[in-house]
Amino acid sequence: MTTKLTYIGKITTPYTFVEECPNNVEDQGPTCRITLFEKFKQGLSGLAAGDNILVLYWLMDAQRDQMVQVGRQGQSKGTFALRSPHRPNPIGAAELSIEAIDIDNGVITVRGLDCLNNTPLIDIKPAMQ
Amino acid sequence: MTTKLTYIGKITTPYTFVEECPNNVEDQGPTCRITLFEKFKQGLSGLAAGDNILVLYWLMDAQRDQMVQVGRQGQSKGTFALRSPHRPNPIGAAELSIEAIDIDNGVITVRGLDCLNNTPLIDIKPAMQ
Repeated sequence: MTTKLTYIGKITTPYTFVEECPNNVEDQGPTCRITLFEKFKQGLSGLAAGDNILVLYWLMDAQRDQMVQVGRQGQSKGTFALRSPHRPNPIGAAELSIEAIDIDNGVITVRGLDCLNNTPLIDIKPAMQ
Repeated sequence: MTTKLTYIGKITTPYTFVEECPNNVEDQGPTCRITLFEKFKQGLSGLAAGDNILVLYWLMDAQRDQMVQVGRQGQSKGTFALRSPHRPNPIGAAELSIEAIDIDNGVITVRGLDCLNNTPLIDIKPAMQ
């Protein structure tokens, strides 16, 4: 019972090591760049600076077999009660505002993503609110 | 540049045909059930009724090669500017409140999901707000 996920781009952040990553998205964090691969660039048309988007990305080095983990407060919790990267499908989800967008080059600039540099991008969609 | 996604459960909704599905999550919509497969049930511990969760699911019959689509207002837009199910990685994302939870049986009850009956579940995590 599996399916295939395609990487559609990559995310550029200042973080090389997991220990450097913030635990969650930071509104006023450093500038990060989301770059779509060539064949997906056209999918950005209609997005503009100021739009709120939901960004989904693949946390590559996660462990996928942990059902219970020790959370940041030291308590033991089920994986689905935590936003830990270690989960059966290590998908990161961030709701962010677009700072700048260059559709021709397939690049969105945002602030404060919480993932490693070169994290694979898997989806972008308008946020619900 | 692909990776493998694992189905961790399934979603029970009243909808058999795409035409019946609402376009987005409905706060006061019908009762829906999220059922985890046996090996993932333990991951629910720590979640409780009233918690807000982000649910990710796999929209199986989507077309994955459309970069520009006609939106509901009749305008042509890039796929990433739309919440259409047709996208390179057809992941549905819904932020919902837990109505009831039965951790022993791996079942969460929510209202108003927008997907077909038997849609594969891929992740649950605490919502950001």
